[in-house]
Amino acid sequence: MNEYQLLVEAFNRTSYPLSGHGKRNIQVLMEAFKDLDENLDSDIYGSGPLIENFQKEMAEYLGKESAVFFPSGTMAQQIALRIGCDLKGRNKVAYHPLCHLEIHEQDGLKKLHHIEPVLLADKNSLISLEDVQRMDKDVACLLLELPQREIGGQLPVYSELEAISAYCREQGILLHLDGARLFEVLPFYGKTAAEICRLFDSVYVSFYKGIGGIAGAILAGSEEFTKESKVWKRRHGGDLISLYPYITAAEYYFKQRIHKMGQYYEEAKELAGFFNQCQGVSTLPLVPVSNMFHVHFEWPREKLIPVLIDIYETTGIGFTAVLREVEGTPTCYYEVSIGDRYVEVPKEKIREAFQKLDEKMQEAR
Amino acid sequence: MNEYQLLVEAFNRTSYPLSGHGKRNIQVLMEAFKDLDENLDSDIYGSGPLIENFQKEMAEYLGKESAVFFPSGTMAQQIALRIGCDLKGRNKVAYHPLCHLEIHEQDGLKKLHHIEPVLLADKNSLISLEDVQRMDKDVACLLLELPQREIGGQLPVYSELEAISAYCREQGILLHLDGARLFEVLPFYGKTAAEICRLFDSVYVSFYKGIGGIAGAILAGSEEFTKESKVWKRRHGGDLISLYPYITAAEYYFKQRIHKMGQYYEEAKELAGFFNQCQGVSTLPLVPVSNMFHVHFEWPREKLIPVLIDIYETTGIGFTAVLREVEGTPTCYYEVSIGDRYVEVPKEKIREAFQKLDEKMQEAR
Repeated sequence: MNEYQLLVEAFNRTSYPLSGHGKRNIQVLMEAFKDLDENLDSDIYGSGPLIENFQKEMAEYLGKESAVFFPSGTMAQQIALRIGCDLKGRNKVAYHPLCHLEIHEQDGLKKLHHIEPVLLADKNSLISLEDVQRMDKDVACLLLELPQREIGGQLPVYSELEAISAYCREQGILLHLDGARLFEVLPFYGKTAAEICRLFDSVYVSFYKGIGGIAGAILAGSEEFTKESKVWKRRHGGDLISLYPYITAAEYYFKQRIHKMGQYYEEAKELAGFFNQCQGVSTLPLVPVSNMFHVHFEWPREKLIPVLIDIYETTGIGFTAVLREVEGTPTCYYEVSIGDRYVEVPKEKIREAFQKLDEKMQEAR
Repeated sequence: MNEYQLLVEAFNRTSYPLSGHGKRNIQVLMEAFKDLDENLDSDIYGSGPLIENFQKEMAEYLGKESAVFFPSGTMAQQIALRIGCDLKGRNKVAYHPLCHLEIHEQDGLKKLHHIEPVLLADKNSLISLEDVQRMDKDVACLLLELPQREIGGQLPVYSELEAISAYCREQGILLHLDGARLFEVLPFYGKTAAEICRLFDSVYVSFYKGIGGIAGAILAGSEEFTKESKVWKRRHGGDLISLYPYITAAEYYFKQRIHKMGQYYEEAKELAGFFNQCQGVSTLPLVPVSNMFHVHFEWPREKLIPVLIDIYETTGIGFTAVLREVEGTPTCYYEVSIGDRYVEVPKEKIREAFQKLDEKMQEAR
C-alpha cells in the first residue's frame, strides 16, 4: 500500500470527519424512502405527479416559469447551452477556464454539440464585468458558476453580478447559471434563489452537493426552453422510464437541509479560521462565502501525508482522504464542503487536531 | 372523461391484469433494497465494487470481455454505434425502420452523432440475410434487434442469424445487438446468452423489460470498446456519481426472474392461443417466440373500448390500458409482455373473459 492509500485508510478510520453529510452508502436512499407509501406510482418517461410536482416546486423556488429534472448536471448544462446556441444561430459560448464543461465532461459540449467555448478570465480569478465586456460579440451564451468551485468557491459581489446580467441582456447574450452550489451561496448574498435566478435566462441546480441527495439536477427557465430541453434529454438518453430514486431523495433532502445553508456557511467560516491560524496553512477564499473552501498547505503532498495520518490516528479528526498537488509548486490542497457532520464533532477534538497541525507545521520549518 | 381515459380507469380497477410483473410503483425499489446492508458503499462515477461486480457478472453472463452499466439503452446504443462508426471511419449504420433509435429517441443519433441510418427491410418484416447482402457497402455497423419489438417481437431463425453474423464479419461490418429483450428469447432459441452474443461485436441488454428492474442497461463488448464507451457515457451526462438505485434493482430482479423466462414464454403461447380462438382477434406473431406479442383486433378503437371496459368490469380481467390504432386501417392493437402476474390469475377468470370477448366480437359482425 502506498502512502496515498494509507491516507485514505487512515481517514476512513476516523471518528470525526469534518466535511460532508456522511458516507455515500445506500442508507442515503433507504432513509429517503423509509416513510413513503409503497403504492406511490413511478414517474414514467418524465410524466406523472412524482416528477411533475417536484419540477413545479423547484420552478417556484427558483422563480422560473418551468423546470425539468435531469439525471445529471452534465446533461442539463450541455443542453441549456445547445438550446441557447440554436436560438441565437451561433455556436460559441463563454465560460471560466475551470468550468465543469471544460475540465470534467470529456469535451461532451464540443464532441456532441460542436459548440466552441471562449474562456474568460485567468483560471485563478473570477469572471469580471470587464472580461464580459471584452469578450467576442458572437457569443450566444455566457455561463457563470456561483460559487466558482475550482478556485475554492469564490463569488463576485452582487452588484457585479447584476451589472453582468444587465450587460448580457443589453447585448442579446443569454446568461446561464451553473448553480451546482446555488443553495449554498444564498446566506452570503442574503438573497432568495429566485432573486438571483432572475438575473439569468436559465439555471441549473444540483441535489447531491449541499443538499446531499443521491444524484440529479434541475434545469429551469422559460416554458419554451424547458420544453425544448426535454427533447434533448430524450436525445441524450436521459429521459429514463423512472427517475424516482433520485427525485424522491432530492425532495427529501431538500426539505431536510435547505434551511441549514446558513449554518453550514457559519461553520465553514469557523473552520477556515482554524486552518488560517496554523503555520503554513491558508484557505481559499480566506473567508468562505458558502459552505465550501480550499485548504492550501505550503508543503508537498508526500511530506504532509504522514502528518495528517498522525493527527487522524491520535485525535480521531479526519480532514480529508484526498490531497491534490498544485501544479508546478511544492504545495498541495484539498476541498472542504461543510455538511451535517461538522456540528456533531466535539469542539475540544477540533482544537486538539488544529493544535497538533500547527505544531507539526512549525516543527518542520 | 373521454372513452380512452375510461379504458385506462377501468383497467386500473381490474383485479387481474394479464401483462407485466406488477405496478410500476416505488415498492419495486423498496423490495430490492429491503435485505441489503445499509453500509454498502455507493458506486462513485462508475467505480467501486457495487458497479464493478455487476458489470463483471454481466460480462460473464453475456460472454463478453467487459461490460458497462448505463442509465439507459438510448444512451448505450447511440454510443455503441458512434464507437463503431469512429472505428470504421464511416458515418453510416443500418437498422430496421422501426428500430428504437429511429422512432423513439428524437433522432439523437442524427442530432448528436451525425450518423446516417440506412433502413433495411420493410417495416413489417424482419431484416433478412438478403437485405444485409444488398445493403450499401459503406455501412460501419448493422444493428439487429432480437426480438423485433415493434412487429410483435418476431425473431429470425437461428441459422439466419448465424449467416448474417458470418456475412458481416467477412465484410468488415460491425454487428451490434439491441438485446432489450434478449433474456426473453433464450428459451425459444434454446441457446445461452453467451452463445447468441458471440455472433455480435457489441451487445446491449435492458433491466426493466422482462427483468422488471427500475431502469438501466448494460453495454458489453471488448475491453477496448467498453473503455471508450465510458468516455462517451461521461460526455452524454450518464456517468452519474451514483447509479446504485438502478444497479441494485437490476441485480436483485435479474436473480429473481432470469430463470422464469421459459415460464413467461410458455404462458405467452398459451395466452396468444386464447386470443387467436376469438372472432376477429389475432396475435402477431401467431405463435409467440418470447414473452411478448401484439394483439390485433379487426375493429376500430372506439368500437372496441366499450367491449373491453365491459369485460374488465364483469370479469376482473384486465387486457390493456392502451389501444393503438393501426395507421390507415379501421383496426387496433396492443402489446402484451408476460411477467409475474399471469400465473397468479385464476384460469376460470381467463376463460370467462375470453368467452365474453369472443361473444361480443361475434355479435357485432
